[in-house]
Amino acid sequence: MSVEVLLFDVFGTVVDWRTTLIRQLEQFGRDHRFQADWIALADDWRAAYEPAMKKVRDGERPWTSLELLHRESLDGLLTRHGLSELNDEQRRRLVLFWHFLDPWPDSLQGLERLHRKYILGTLSNGGVRLLADMARYARLPWDVILSSDLFRRYKPDPAVYLGAAELLDTRRDNVMLVAAHNYDLAAARKQGFKTAFVPRPTEYGPRQSRDFKAESDWDYVAADFADLAGRLGA
Amino acid sequence: MSVEVLLFDVFGTVVDWRTTLIRQLEQFGRDHRFQADWIALADDWRAAYEPAMKKVRDGERPWTSLELLHRESLDGLLTRHGLSELNDEQRRRLVLFWHFLDPWPDSLQGLERLHRKYILGTLSNGGVRLLADMARYARLPWDVILSSDLFRRYKPDPAVYLGAAELLDTRRDNVMLVAAHNYDLAAARKQGFKTAFVPRPTEYGPRQSRDFKAESDWDYVAADFADLAGRLGA
Repeated sequence: MSVEVLLFDVFGTVVDWRTTLIRQLEQFGRDHRFQADWIALADDWRAAYEPAMKKVRDGERPWTSLELLHRESLDGLLTRHGLSELNDEQRRRLVLFWHFLDPWPDSLQGLERLHRKYILGTLSNGGVRLLADMARYARLPWDVILSSDLFRRYKPDPAVYLGAAELLDTRRDNVMLVAAHNYDLAAARKQGFKTAFVPRPTEYGPRQSRDFKAESDWDYVAADFADLAGRLGA
Repeated sequence: MSVEVLLFDVFGTVVDWRTTLIRQLEQFGRDHRFQADWIALADDWRAAYEPAMKKVRDGERPWTSLELLHRESLDGLLTRHGLSELNDEQRRRLVLFWHFLDPWPDSLQGLERLHRKYILGTLSNGGVRLLADMARYARLPWDVILSSDLFRRYKPDPAVYLGAAELLDTRRDNVMLVAAHNYDLAAARKQGFKTAFVPRPTEYGPRQSRDFKAESDWDYVAADFADLAGRLGA
Protein backbone atom coordinates (compact mmCIF):
# COMPACT_ATOMS: atom_id res chain seq x y z
CA MET A 1 0.00 0.00 0.00
CA SER A 2 1.35 3.39 -0.96
CA VAL A 3 -1.71 5.46 -0.10
CA GLU A 4 -0.83 9.11 0.47
CA VAL A 5 -4.24 10.78 0.23
CA LEU A 6 -7.50 9.89 1.96
CA LEU A 7 -10.62 11.41 0.41
CA PHE A 8 -13.87 11.32 2.36
CA ASP A 9 -17.45 11.26 1.36
CA VAL A 10 -18.99 13.82 3.71
CA PHE A 11 -22.81 13.61 4.11
CA GLY A 12 -23.41 10.52 6.18
CA THR A 13 -19.79 9.40 6.30
CA VAL A 14 -18.24 12.31 8.24
CA VAL A 15 -21.31 14.19 9.46
CA ASP A 16 -24.66 13.10 10.86
CA TRP A 17 -26.82 15.25 8.60
CA ARG A 18 -30.13 13.78 9.84
CA THR A 19 -29.80 14.46 13.56
CA THR A 20 -28.36 17.92 12.93
CA LEU A 21 -30.92 18.90 10.32
CA ILE A 22 -33.84 17.80 12.50
CA ARG A 23 -32.45 19.75 15.44
CA GLN A 24 -32.00 22.89 13.32
CA LEU A 25 -35.48 22.60 11.83
CA GLU A 26 -37.10 22.09 15.22
CA GLN A 27 -35.25 25.12 16.58
CA PHE A 28 -36.35 27.14 13.56
CA GLY A 29 -39.96 26.07 14.21
CA ARG A 30 -39.79 27.20 17.82
CA ASP A 31 -38.10 30.52 16.92
CA HIS A 32 -40.63 31.41 14.22
CA ARG A 33 -43.70 29.62 15.62
CA PHE A 34 -44.15 27.25 12.74
CA GLN A 35 -45.72 23.84 13.39
CA ALA A 36 -44.71 20.88 11.25
CA ASP A 37 -43.44 17.31 11.32
CA TRP A 38 -39.81 18.39 11.14
CA ILE A 39 -38.49 14.83 11.14
CA ALA A 40 -40.58 13.97 8.10
CA LEU A 41 -39.50 17.19 6.39
CA ALA A 42 -35.83 16.36 6.98
CA ASP A 43 -36.26 12.84 5.66
CA ASP A 44 -38.29 13.96 2.66
CA TRP A 45 -35.77 16.67 1.87
CA ARG A 46 -32.93 14.17 1.83
CA ALA A 47 -35.01 11.71 -0.17
CA ALA A 48 -35.40 14.37 -2.88
CA TYR A 49 -31.62 14.62 -3.23
CA GLU A 50 -30.98 11.48 -5.30
CA PRO A 51 -33.69 12.02 -7.93
CA ALA A 52 -32.70 15.70 -8.27
CA MET A 53 -29.04 14.82 -8.88
CA LYS A 54 -30.02 12.00 -11.19
CA LYS A 55 -31.53 14.47 -13.65
CA VAL A 56 -28.19 16.28 -13.80
CA ARG A 57 -26.21 13.04 -14.00
CA ASP A 58 -28.39 11.72 -16.79
CA GLY A 59 -28.07 14.95 -18.75
CA GLU A 60 -31.80 15.75 -18.46
CA ARG A 61 -30.76 19.18 -17.23
CA PRO A 62 -27.43 21.05 -17.35
CA TRP A 63 -25.09 21.32 -14.38
CA THR A 64 -27.03 22.61 -11.39
CA SER A 65 -25.43 23.25 -8.00
CA LEU A 66 -26.49 21.34 -4.92
CA GLU A 67 -27.53 24.69 -3.41
CA LEU A 68 -30.11 25.16 -6.12
CA LEU A 69 -31.24 21.53 -5.99
CA HIS A 70 -31.71 21.88 -2.23
CA ARG A 71 -33.74 25.04 -2.70
CA GLU A 72 -35.91 23.61 -5.45
CA SER A 73 -36.76 20.48 -3.49
CA LEU A 74 -37.41 22.53 -0.36
CA ASP A 75 -39.83 24.78 -2.22
CA GLY A 76 -41.77 21.74 -3.36
CA LEU A 77 -41.82 20.15 0.09
CA LEU A 78 -42.85 23.21 2.08
CA THR A 79 -46.26 23.25 0.43
CA ARG A 80 -46.81 19.55 1.20
CA HIS A 81 -45.76 20.13 4.80
CA GLY A 82 -48.08 23.09 5.37
CA LEU A 83 -45.23 25.59 5.42
CA SER A 84 -45.86 27.56 2.25
CA GLU A 85 -45.87 30.85 4.15
CA LEU A 86 -42.09 30.70 4.71
CA ASN A 87 -40.58 33.73 3.00
CA ASP A 88 -37.52 33.81 0.76
CA GLU A 89 -35.12 34.77 3.51
CA GLN A 90 -36.35 31.92 5.71
CA ARG A 91 -36.00 29.44 2.86
CA ARG A 92 -32.42 30.60 2.30
CA ARG A 93 -31.71 30.00 5.96
CA LEU A 94 -33.04 26.47 5.77
CA VAL A 95 -30.85 25.68 2.75
CA LEU A 96 -27.84 26.91 4.74
CA PHE A 97 -28.58 24.33 7.45
CA TRP A 98 -26.80 21.83 5.18
CA HIS A 99 -23.58 23.84 5.60
CA PHE A 100 -23.47 23.41 9.37
CA LEU A 101 -23.73 19.74 10.25
CA ASP A 102 -22.28 17.95 13.25
CA PRO A 103 -19.71 15.19 12.83
CA TRP A 104 -20.36 11.67 14.11
CA PRO A 105 -18.89 11.23 17.60
CA ASP A 106 -15.78 9.42 16.28
CA SER A 107 -15.13 11.64 13.25
CA LEU A 108 -12.98 14.44 14.63
CA GLN A 109 -10.58 12.39 16.69
CA GLY A 110 -10.19 9.85 13.90
CA LEU A 111 -9.53 12.57 11.32
CA GLU A 112 -6.96 14.24 13.56
CA ARG A 113 -5.07 10.96 13.87
CA LEU A 114 -5.26 10.25 10.15
CA HIS A 115 -4.16 13.81 9.39
CA ARG A 116 -0.75 13.19 10.93
CA LYS A 117 0.00 10.56 8.33
CA TYR A 118 -2.08 11.35 5.25
CA ILE A 119 -3.24 14.25 3.14
CA LEU A 120 -6.95 14.51 3.91
CA GLY A 121 -9.62 15.85 1.62
CA THR A 122 -13.30 15.77 0.85
CA LEU A 123 -14.80 14.17 -2.24
CA SER A 124 -18.37 15.27 -1.91
CA ASN A 125 -21.43 16.15 -3.91
CA GLY A 126 -21.67 19.24 -1.74
CA GLY A 127 -20.08 22.39 -3.12
CA VAL A 128 -16.82 24.12 -2.18
CA ARG A 129 -18.57 26.80 -0.14
CA LEU A 130 -20.80 24.37 1.73
CA LEU A 131 -17.79 22.19 2.57
CA ALA A 132 -15.67 25.17 3.64
CA ASP A 133 -18.45 26.46 5.91
CA MET A 134 -18.84 22.97 7.39
CA ALA A 135 -15.12 22.55 7.96
CA ARG A 136 -14.93 25.85 9.83
CA TYR A 137 -18.02 25.03 11.87
CA ALA A 138 -17.02 21.46 12.75
CA ARG A 139 -13.21 21.96 12.72
CA LEU A 140 -12.64 19.28 10.11
CA PRO A 141 -8.92 19.16 9.27
CA TRP A 142 -9.13 19.02 5.46
CA ASP A 143 -6.02 19.79 3.47
CA VAL A 144 -8.06 20.08 0.30
CA ILE A 145 -11.72 20.45 -0.52
CA LEU A 146 -12.62 18.53 -3.64
CA SER A 147 -16.23 18.56 -4.66
CA SER A 148 -18.74 18.13 -7.42
CA ASP A 149 -18.76 21.78 -8.42
CA LEU A 150 -15.05 21.69 -9.36
CA PHE A 151 -15.93 19.20 -12.07
CA ARG A 152 -19.57 20.11 -12.63
CA ARG A 153 -20.41 16.44 -12.25
CA TYR A 154 -21.97 14.51 -9.39
CA LYS A 155 -20.61 11.28 -7.95
CA PRO A 156 -20.61 8.52 -9.05
CA ASP A 157 -19.65 10.12 -12.38
CA PRO A 158 -16.11 8.88 -13.15
CA ALA A 159 -15.03 12.46 -13.92
CA VAL A 160 -15.18 13.32 -10.22
CA TYR A 161 -12.76 10.57 -9.15
CA LEU A 162 -10.47 11.07 -12.14
CA GLY A 163 -10.45 14.83 -11.71
CA ALA A 164 -9.60 14.51 -8.03
CA ALA A 165 -6.62 12.25 -8.70
CA GLU A 166 -5.39 14.62 -11.39
CA LEU A 167 -5.55 17.64 -9.07
CA LEU A 168 -3.74 15.62 -6.40
CA ASP A 169 -1.05 14.89 -8.99
CA THR A 170 -0.73 11.29 -7.94
CA ARG A 171 -1.47 7.78 -9.13
CA ARG A 172 -5.06 6.76 -8.54
CA ASP A 173 -4.04 3.81 -6.40
CA ASN A 174 -2.32 6.25 -4.05
CA VAL A 175 -5.74 7.68 -3.22
CA MET A 176 -8.25 5.97 -0.94
CA LEU A 177 -11.92 6.90 -0.73
CA VAL A 178 -13.51 6.54 2.68
CA ALA A 179 -17.29 6.25 2.51
CA ALA A 180 -20.34 4.82 4.24
CA HIS A 181 -21.94 4.07 0.87
CA ASN A 182 -21.11 1.02 -1.19
CA TYR A 183 -22.07 2.63 -4.53
CA ASP A 184 -19.51 5.40 -4.00
CA LEU A 185 -16.73 2.94 -3.22
CA ALA A 186 -17.64 0.82 -6.24
CA ALA A 187 -17.32 3.87 -8.50
CA ALA A 188 -14.02 4.85 -6.89
CA ARG A 189 -12.57 1.35 -7.22
CA LYS A 190 -13.56 1.25 -10.88
CA GLN A 191 -11.27 4.26 -11.40
CA GLY A 192 -8.40 2.61 -9.55
CA PHE A 193 -8.81 4.15 -6.08
CA LYS A 194 -8.24 2.23 -2.88
CA THR A 195 -11.42 1.90 -0.78
CA ALA A 196 -12.42 1.95 2.88
CA PHE A 197 -15.93 1.34 4.19
CA VAL A 198 -17.19 2.70 7.50
CA PRO A 199 -20.81 1.77 8.28
CA ARG A 200 -23.18 4.47 9.46
CA PRO A 201 -26.27 2.35 10.09
CA THR A 202 -28.29 5.17 11.66
CA GLU A 203 -27.60 7.72 8.92
CA TYR A 204 -31.11 7.59 7.49
CA GLY A 205 -32.89 6.77 10.76
CA PRO A 206 -35.77 4.29 10.57
CA ARG A 207 -35.93 4.73 6.79
CA GLN A 208 -32.42 3.31 6.27
CA SER A 209 -32.61 0.42 3.83
CA ARG A 210 -29.03 -0.19 2.74
CA ASP A 211 -25.33 0.26 3.48
CA PHE A 212 -25.60 -1.57 6.78
CA LYS A 213 -22.47 -3.42 5.83
CA ALA A 214 -19.73 -3.76 3.25
CA GLU A 215 -21.06 -5.29 0.06
CA SER A 216 -17.69 -5.98 -1.49
CA ASP A 217 -14.13 -6.79 -0.47
CA TRP A 218 -13.14 -3.18 0.10
CA ASP A 219 -9.48 -2.67 1.02
CA TYR A 220 -10.50 -1.71 4.53
CA VAL A 221 -13.71 -2.21 6.47
CA ALA A 222 -13.60 -0.35 9.77
CA ALA A 223 -16.10 0.07 12.60
CA ASP A 224 -15.55 3.83 12.75
CA PHE A 225 -12.85 6.46 12.09
CA ALA A 226 -10.88 5.53 15.21
CA ASP A 227 -10.77 1.92 14.04
CA LEU A 228 -9.77 3.07 10.55
CA ALA A 229 -6.94 5.17 11.99
CA GLY A 230 -5.74 2.16 13.96
CA ARG A 231 -5.78 -0.13 10.95
CA LEU A 232 -3.85 2.43 8.91
CA GLY A 233 -1.24 2.83 11.63
CA ALA A 234 -2.16 6.46 12.27
CA MET B 1 -17.45 46.50 3.59
CA SER B 2 -19.06 43.07 3.60
CA VAL B 3 -15.94 41.01 2.86
CA GLU B 4 -16.35 37.41 3.98
CA VAL B 5 -13.51 35.69 2.12
CA LEU B 6 -9.83 36.62 1.89
CA LEU B 7 -7.93 34.98 -0.95
CA PHE B 8 -4.15 35.12 -0.94
CA ASP B 9 -1.59 35.09 -3.64
CA VAL B 10 0.98 32.63 -2.28
CA PHE B 11 4.45 32.80 -3.90
CA GLY B 12 6.00 35.99 -2.58
CA THR B 13 2.92 37.15 -0.68
CA VAL B 14 2.63 34.37 1.92
CA VAL B 15 5.92 32.51 1.48
CA ASP B 16 9.50 33.63 0.93
CA TRP B 17 10.22 31.34 -2.00
CA ARG B 18 13.67 32.81 -2.72
CA THR B 19 15.31 32.33 0.68
CA THR B 20 13.80 28.86 1.05
CA LEU B 21 14.69 27.72 -2.44
CA ILE B 22 18.30 28.90 -2.13
CA ARG B 23 18.64 27.11 1.21
CA GLN B 24 17.21 23.88 -0.21
CA LEU B 25 19.43 24.05 -3.30
CA GLU B 26 22.55 24.71 -1.23
CA GLN B 27 21.71 21.77 1.02
CA PHE B 28 21.14 19.60 -2.02
CA GLY B 29 24.56 20.66 -3.37
CA ARG B 30 26.27 19.71 -0.12
CA ASP B 31 24.43 16.38 0.14
CA HIS B 32 25.21 15.33 -3.43
CA ARG B 33 28.54 17.13 -3.87
CA PHE B 34 27.43 19.34 -6.71
CA GLN B 35 29.05 22.77 -7.12
CA ALA B 36 27.03 25.62 -8.59
CA ASP B 37 25.93 29.20 -8.09
CA TRP B 38 22.72 28.17 -6.33
CA ILE B 39 21.55 31.73 -5.82
CA ALA B 40 21.76 32.42 -9.54
CA LEU B 41 20.02 29.12 -10.30
CA ALA B 42 17.14 30.02 -7.96
CA ASP B 43 16.79 33.47 -9.49
CA ASP B 44 17.04 32.17 -13.04
CA TRP B 45 14.49 29.47 -12.29
CA ARG B 46 11.99 31.99 -10.99
CA ALA B 47 12.74 34.32 -13.91
CA ALA B 48 11.74 31.51 -16.29
CA TYR B 49 8.29 31.31 -14.66
CA GLU B 50 6.65 34.34 -16.24
CA PRO B 51 7.64 33.63 -19.87
CA ALA B 52 6.68 29.96 -19.47
CA MET B 53 3.20 30.85 -18.17
CA LYS B 54 2.82 33.53 -20.79
CA LYS B 55 2.89 30.93 -23.57
CA VAL B 56 -0.03 29.15 -21.89
CA ARG B 57 -1.87 32.41 -21.20
CA ASP B 58 -1.43 33.56 -24.79
CA GLY B 59 -2.68 30.25 -26.15
CA GLU B 60 0.68 29.41 -27.75
CA ARG B 61 0.46 26.06 -25.97
CA PRO B 62 -2.42 24.23 -24.30
CA TRP B 63 -2.91 24.15 -20.53
CA THR B 64 0.31 22.98 -18.90
CA SER B 65 0.67 22.53 -15.14
CA LEU B 66 3.13 24.59 -13.13
CA GLU B 67 4.84 21.30 -12.19
CA LEU B 68 5.69 20.64 -15.81
CA LEU B 69 6.68 24.26 -16.49
CA HIS B 70 9.01 24.12 -13.48
CA ARG B 71 10.57 20.89 -14.75
CA GLU B 72 11.00 22.16 -18.29
CA SER B 73 12.66 25.38 -17.20
CA LEU B 74 14.88 23.48 -14.74
CA ASP B 75 16.04 21.11 -17.47
CA GLY B 76 17.08 24.06 -19.59
CA LEU B 77 18.85 25.82 -16.74
CA LEU B 78 20.80 22.85 -15.39
CA THR B 79 22.88 22.69 -18.54
CA ARG B 80 23.69 26.40 -18.36
CA HIS B 81 24.65 26.03 -14.70
CA GLY B 82 26.99 23.07 -15.25
CA LEU B 83 24.60 20.61 -13.63
CA SER B 84 23.55 18.48 -16.58
CA GLU B 85 24.58 15.29 -14.78
CA LEU B 86 21.61 15.51 -12.37
CA ASN B 87 19.48 12.43 -12.91
CA ASP B 88 15.72 12.28 -13.27
CA GLU B 89 15.06 11.49 -9.62
CA GLN B 90 17.21 14.44 -8.52
CA ARG B 91 15.41 16.77 -10.91
CA ARG B 92 12.06 15.63 -9.52
CA ARG B 93 13.30 16.42 -6.03
CA LEU B 94 14.30 19.92 -7.07
CA VAL B 95 10.87 20.57 -8.58
CA LEU B 96 9.31 19.48 -5.26
CA PHE B 97 11.29 22.19 -3.44
CA TRP B 98 8.56 24.60 -4.60
CA HIS B 99 6.04 22.66 -2.50
CA PHE B 100 7.85 23.26 0.76
CA LEU B 101 8.48 26.97 1.21
CA ASP B 102 8.75 28.94 4.43
CA PRO B 103 6.27 31.71 5.25
CA TRP B 104 7.43 35.28 5.82
CA PRO B 105 7.95 35.91 9.56
CA ASP B 106 4.59 37.70 9.94
CA SER B 107 2.50 35.35 7.76
CA LEU B 108 1.40 32.64 10.20
CA GLN B 109 0.36 34.84 13.08
CA GLY B 110 -1.45 37.22 10.76
CA LEU B 111 -3.29 34.39 9.03
CA GLU B 112 -4.33 32.85 12.36
CA ARG B 113 -5.85 36.18 13.42
CA LEU B 114 -7.59 36.69 10.10
CA HIS B 115 -8.88 33.11 10.18
CA ARG B 116 -11.04 33.85 13.22
CA LYS B 117 -13.04 36.38 11.22
CA TYR B 118 -12.80 35.39 7.55
CA ILE B 119 -12.86 32.38 5.30
CA LEU B 120 -9.27 32.11 4.08
CA GLY B 121 -8.10 30.63 0.81
CA THR B 122 -5.34 30.61 -1.72
CA LEU B 123 -5.65 32.02 -5.22
CA SER B 124 -2.40 30.90 -6.70
CA ASN B 125 -0.78 29.88 -9.95
CA GLY B 126 0.59 26.89 -8.06
CA GLY B 127 -1.45 23.70 -8.28
CA VAL B 128 -3.74 22.08 -5.72
CA ARG B 129 -1.17 19.46 -4.71
CA LEU B 130 1.66 21.97 -4.37
CA LEU B 131 -0.53 24.22 -2.23
CA ALA B 132 -1.76 21.32 -0.07
CA ASP B 133 1.81 20.12 0.52
CA MET B 134 2.85 23.66 1.42
CA ALA B 135 -0.07 24.17 3.78
CA ARG B 136 0.78 20.96 5.65
CA TYR B 137 4.48 21.85 5.78
CA ALA B 138 4.00 25.47 6.86
CA ARG B 139 0.73 25.01 8.80
CA LEU B 140 -1.14 27.57 6.72
CA PRO B 141 -4.78 27.72 7.91
CA TRP B 142 -6.52 27.65 4.53
CA ASP B 143 -10.21 26.83 4.44
CA VAL B 144 -10.07 26.35 0.68
CA ILE B 145 -7.34 25.90 -1.86
CA LEU B 146 -8.19 27.64 -5.09
CA SER B 147 -5.61 27.50 -7.81
CA SER B 148 -4.85 27.78 -11.49
CA ASP B 149 -5.31 24.08 -12.19
CA LEU B 150 -8.97 24.17 -11.11
CA PHE B 151 -9.63 26.51 -14.00
CA ARG B 152 -6.77 25.52 -16.30
CA ARG B 153 -5.90 29.19 -16.58
CA TYR B 154 -3.13 31.25 -15.02
CA LYS B 155 -3.63 34.55 -13.24
CA PRO B 156 -4.22 37.26 -14.32
CA ASP B 157 -6.72 35.51 -16.61
CA PRO B 158 -10.18 36.75 -15.54
CA ALA B 159 -11.46 33.16 -15.47
CA VAL B 160 -9.41 32.49 -12.32
CA TYR B 161 -11.01 35.31 -10.30
CA LEU B 162 -14.49 34.70 -11.68
CA GLY B 163 -14.22 30.96 -11.12
CA ALA B 164 -13.08 31.48 -7.54
CA ALA B 165 -16.02 33.74 -6.70
CA GLU B 166 -18.41 31.25 -8.26
CA LEU B 167 -17.04 28.35 -6.19
CA LEU B 168 -17.27 30.53 -3.08
CA ASP B 169 -20.92 31.17 -3.97
CA THR B 170 -20.70 34.83 -3.08
CA ARG B 171 -20.74 38.27 -4.65
CA ARG B 172 -17.37 39.24 -6.04
CA ASP B 173 -17.19 42.31 -3.83
CA ASN B 174 -17.42 40.01 -0.80
CA VAL B 175 -14.03 38.59 -1.77
CA MET B 176 -10.73 40.38 -1.17
CA LEU B 177 -7.47 39.42 -2.83
CA VAL B 178 -4.36 39.92 -0.72
CA ALA B 179 -1.20 40.14 -2.82
CA ALA B 180 2.28 41.62 -2.97
CA HIS B 181 1.92 42.18 -6.71
CA ASN B 182 0.10 45.13 -8.20
CA TYR B 183 -0.74 43.35 -11.49
CA ASP B 184 -2.63 40.64 -9.60
CA LEU B 185 -4.66 43.18 -7.61
CA ALA B 186 -5.45 45.12 -10.78
CA ALA B 187 -6.84 41.98 -12.42
CA ALA B 188 -8.84 41.11 -9.28
CA ARG B 189 -10.30 44.61 -9.02
CA LYS B 190 -11.32 44.51 -12.66
CA GLN B 191 -13.52 41.52 -11.78
CA GLY B 192 -15.05 43.30 -8.81
CA PHE B 193 -12.90 41.93 -5.97
CA LYS B 194 -11.79 44.01 -3.03
CA THR B 195 -8.00 44.41 -2.86
CA ALA B 196 -5.25 44.51 -0.22
CA PHE B 197 -1.58 45.15 -0.93
CA VAL B 198 1.20 43.95 1.34
CA PRO B 199 4.69 44.87 0.11
CA ARG B 200 7.37 42.19 0.06
CA PRO B 201 10.32 44.31 -1.08
CA THR B 202 12.92 41.53 -0.66
CA GLU B 203 10.95 38.85 -2.50
CA TYR B 204 13.23 38.88 -5.55
CA GLY B 205 16.41 39.83 -3.69
CA PRO B 206 18.76 42.27 -5.44
CA ARG B 207 16.98 41.65 -8.76
CA GLN B 208 13.66 43.07 -7.49
CA SER B 209 12.55 45.83 -9.82
CA ARG B 210 8.91 46.42 -8.94
CA ASP B 211 6.12 46.09 -6.40
CA PHE B 212 8.02 48.06 -3.78
CA LYS B 213 4.81 49.90 -3.10
CA ALA B 214 1.14 50.14 -3.92
CA GLU B 215 0.63 51.49 -7.42
CA SER B 216 -3.07 52.16 -7.08
CA ASP B 217 -5.63 53.06 -4.42
CA TRP B 218 -6.15 49.49 -3.24
CA ASP B 219 -8.81 49.08 -0.55
CA TYR B 220 -6.12 48.28 1.99
CA VAL B 221 -2.38 48.84 1.98
CA ALA B 222 -0.76 47.15 4.96
CA ALA B 223 2.85 46.84 6.13
CA ASP B 224 2.50 43.09 6.73
CA PHE B 225 -0.12 40.48 7.67
CA ALA B 226 -0.25 41.59 11.31
CA ASP B 227 -0.98 45.13 10.18
CA LEU B 228 -3.62 43.82 7.76
CA ALA B 229 -5.29 41.84 10.56
CA GLY B 230 -5.35 44.95 12.70
CA ARG B 231 -6.89 47.09 9.98
CA LEU B 232 -9.54 44.46 9.35
CA GLY B 233 -10.40 44.25 13.04
CA ALA B 234 -9.25 40.64 13.31
